[in-house]
Amino acid sequence: MNGAESLVHTLLKSGIDTCFANPGTSELHFVSALDRIPGMRCVLGLFEGVVTACADGYARMAEKPAVTLLHCGPGLANGLANLHNARRACTPIVNIVGDQATHHRPLDALLTADTEGWARPVSAWVRTAASAAAVGSDAAVAVQAARTAPGQIATLIVPADVGWNEGGIVAESLPVPRQPQVAPGIVQQIATLLRRGEPTVLFLGRGALRAQALEAAQRIAAATGARLMAQQANPRIERGQGRVPIERLPYAVEPAIAALAGIGHLVLVGAVQPVAVFAYPDKPGYLYPADAQVHVLARPEQDPLHALQALADELSAPPVPLPDLGPVPEPARGIPTSEAVGQTIAALIPEQAIVVEEGVSFGRSFYAKTRAAAPHDWLQITGAAIGIGLPLATGAAIGAPERRVISLQADGAAMYTLQALWTQARERLNVTTVILANRKYAILLHELANLGVRPSAIAQRMMDLGDPDLDWTRIANGMGVEAARAESCEQLADLLRQSLHRTGPFLIELVI
Amino acid sequence: MNGAESLVHTLLKSGIDTCFANPGTSELHFVSALDRIPGMRCVLGLFEGVVTACADGYARMAEKPAVTLLHCGPGLANGLANLHNARRACTPIVNIVGDQATHHRPLDALLTADTEGWARPVSAWVRTAASAAAVGSDAAVAVQAARTAPGQIATLIVPADVGWNEGGIVAESLPVPRQPQVAPGIVQQIATLLRRGEPTVLFLGRGALRAQALEAAQRIAAATGARLMAQQANPRIERGQGRVPIERLPYAVEPAIAALAGIGHLVLVGAVQPVAVFAYPDKPGYLYPADAQVHVLARPEQDPLHALQALADELSAPPVPLPDLGPVPEPARGIPTSEAVGQTIAALIPEQAIVVEEGVSFGRSFYAKTRAAAPHDWLQITGAAIGIGLPLATGAAIGAPERRVISLQADGAAMYTLQALWTQARERLNVTTVILANRKYAILLHELANLGVRPSAIAQRMMDLGDPDLDWTRIANGMGVEAARAESCEQLADLLRQSLHRTGPFLIELVI
Repeated sequence: MNGAESLVHTLLKSGIDTCFANPGTSELHFVSALDRIPGMRCVLGLFEGVVTACADGYARMAEKPAVTLLHCGPGLANGLANLHNARRACTPIVNIVGDQATHHRPLDALLTADTEGWARPVSAWVRTAASAAAVGSDAAVAVQAARTAPGQIATLIVPADVGWNEGGIVAESLPVPRQPQVAPGIVQQIATLLRRGEPTVLFLGRGALRAQALEAAQRIAAATGARLMAQQANPRIERGQGRVPIERLPYAVEPAIAALAGIGHLVLVGAVQPVAVFAYPDKPGYLYPADAQVHVLARPEQDPLHALQALADELSAPPVPLPDLGPVPEPARGIPTSEAVGQTIAALIPEQAIVVEEGVSFGRSFYAKTRAAAPHDWLQITGAAIGIGLPLATGAAIGAPERRVISLQADGAAMYTLQALWTQARERLNVTTVILANRKYAILLHELANLGVRPSAIAQRMMDLGDPDLDWTRIANGMGVEAARAESCEQLADLLRQSLHRTGPFLIELVI
Repeated sequence: MNGAESLVHTLLKSGIDTCFANPGTSELHFVSALDRIPGMRCVLGLFEGVVTACADGYARMAEKPAVTLLHCGPGLANGLANLHNARRACTPIVNIVGDQATHHRPLDALLTADTEGWARPVSAWVRTAASAAAVGSDAAVAVQAARTAPGQIATLIVPADVGWNEGGIVAESLPVPRQPQVAPGIVQQIATLLRRGEPTVLFLGRGALRAQALEAAQRIAAATGARLMAQQANPRIERGQGRVPIERLPYAVEPAIAALAGIGHLVLVGAVQPVAVFAYPDKPGYLYPADAQVHVLARPEQDPLHALQALADELSAPPVPLPDLGPVPEPARGIPTSEAVGQTIAALIPEQAIVVEEGVSFGRSFYAKTRAAAPHDWLQITGAAIGIGLPLATGAAIGAPERRVISLQADGAAMYTLQALWTQARERLNVTTVILANRKYAILLHELANLGVRPSAIAQRMMDLGDPDLDWTRIANGMGVEAARAESCEQLADLLRQSLHRTGPFLIELVI
């Protein structure tokens, strides 16, 4: 058995059965092993930024890591921006990065690069396999590292000779460390705090935004008057009819500060303290009042469901009926404003859909407007590195194949990883993409206006995606995805409805 | 004056007048300064891998650096693969990477990443500007570093507050160190070696492949019997009618070893010693005979023209008439094989065209077949990180606006940075792209066959770009580039001819 075969066998034993890949010459023994050993679903991405965000979307839904297959340092580099997003999401991912053969590295051949150096900033665990005998156990440790709470990125670099040499040893799956639970003393301290009845926000992130955890949080809120709020960027929120609705901290500094104004305490549950994504002259970086105290109920790696349930019990908080969100909205009509599009989508989200949102500026109303939609999961960009949406939707569809995916996607960000459309077509995934085609980097124009700058020709041109306009129907067709254009809410609703009855992907270019 | 304004003024004073940009929020003061200070041409790329390869293509033709504008660590990361290629080409580039404000970095906001860590493996010079007062002088040093022979990548990270704070100071341009010349003693030693008449190859790279240097090399070859050969991957070769033809070392291991078989001496002139791009089981890594001696006439940073002329003079080598390359070939007819396509292109390359070649496997014959074409420059992928061609062609067209660019592009590699087509349309660049649409990663299938592996379904599917086929005419149209399909050499020739009389870009999807 060669090293590559032991690697594939070990991954399978460790419960990994999905591989997102963009292979190259140095990975061919791994590809050849995948070809001969049954059990791994292999999904080709035509660019590595697609591959890594697919793995992110997959793990957010499947709740276990996929493996990526990347080609040497530059192939890894192409996937780094979306690994940065995945790191912020605490998504478990195992990267397998092929590299120069051990004895070939000193020759400094053209593709040789500092693979470990590039991997480290996004990876909790990095190792270069030293031999065919070791790569199996390396892979088992990599999977264990990825699955360790709260979910981490593990990067295993596999020199070509480690793959092709004989002497591979299949490793047993390693136990995943149990997610640490919060200490009873902490729960009691937070309960004591909440009983004082001072203005408090329970600030929720990651696992605290799943349905059961939100129900416990709602008990706490009802019993103590504390408010619930989600952090701005979250990997997955369970919401819609039959779920506890949860407000999200706004992106922009002023409304975020307004949302937290007057609070005396901020209790973090799987969230990090709220800070502005960017600094601005004369604006604060921290978004909560200077005299508010920050408390931690559950750190990101601790079990938030247990923490919230323990806290609710400590408070003897009784069960609370789910709030009435009112009826599912009707589709809007007429001009596709942000609010009208949000409402139209809310009307048509099917039961148990996955909504992937990278709406950037135009998407600002979507979350609020879809509050009373059918029950669904809401997946977001998590690290502010744009270009995640199309492949995140692709991976989510593979991670939860029985569910429809609706991908709400700003046009500028879509261009970063548009190759994902081809993978959607190749895999016949049930993904409806709505491209929000405002044909500009609207968020930057907005930020420039905030600076008091009236852009003249040069700046305008650097934020304008027109001249020429991108034609998303043709781009999608070119990658094998059927597509149509909508210019009104009625057209959007018609196309969205039609797409939900199709098998396979469909793209709607919504001209806004 | 704020820091951003001092930065723009300093770049202009240092002779930088072209900026390839994909800006974000943290770069807006720089964009605003560009908007107000005349003199910098700003070119928008819709993905950072486009931006960095544009800067590479620009500098290969303009012979001076452009500046890139990139957004924080993840924006830089998206550009790294093509910076890797540029580093291998020794292309001068100044990267300006915006980043979190100095006081905001400790807050670990979402987009915060290890920007310096990612920059270092591709950069000869990395600095994070510490203040508005310092960023001007930092920029002057960055330009000096980029222009220092043989051409380097300099990365200046500019925290947002360094841009917006007042107190910017414009720095004077710093002198570019003179390119070091080879010592007379070295020239004499190599002359002594060559006079012995033993089988010797003058192995040429980078500046040694420009027309004047090749003429000197030809004098040496004629006087001593030494053979001339170019390294496999080169940033720019001047060739065609009226130029000294130069053979290139083949990519594949066996033909490369055959090309250097029997030599006793390898004399490097601006080249690095030839090694295989990848290692293979039971194949050597070094491509020259084990008993051959390697000598260095000119290191990459030394002046190769001076070295070759000094050597020719030392040898009293008389001028040699340019070889007769025969007539410019006629276009081929019928099935578009690699050879037939190469011949057809050779027939139609206009005078002083720039040919950008990322043909990967199908392009194997193009270089040899275009030997007797009209005089032109040949630009290649230099670091084996695929996805350089379309943006390299884009940047080259901006660096040499009076010249036609012909971009010969494998389809798989084209998908990595296809967003470059939009920039070609936006800037109305005279670029004719020929997509070599074999709809597979043919090089990988070939490499698998070399391993003796008959791929079954999984491996086939990971190397197959069909199902669905990419439709490059629609993809190009979607980005504002007119396009048509060719399936024969006659159709290719017709479309190529038509494109040469157009203003602006055109794409030919050649189905092969």
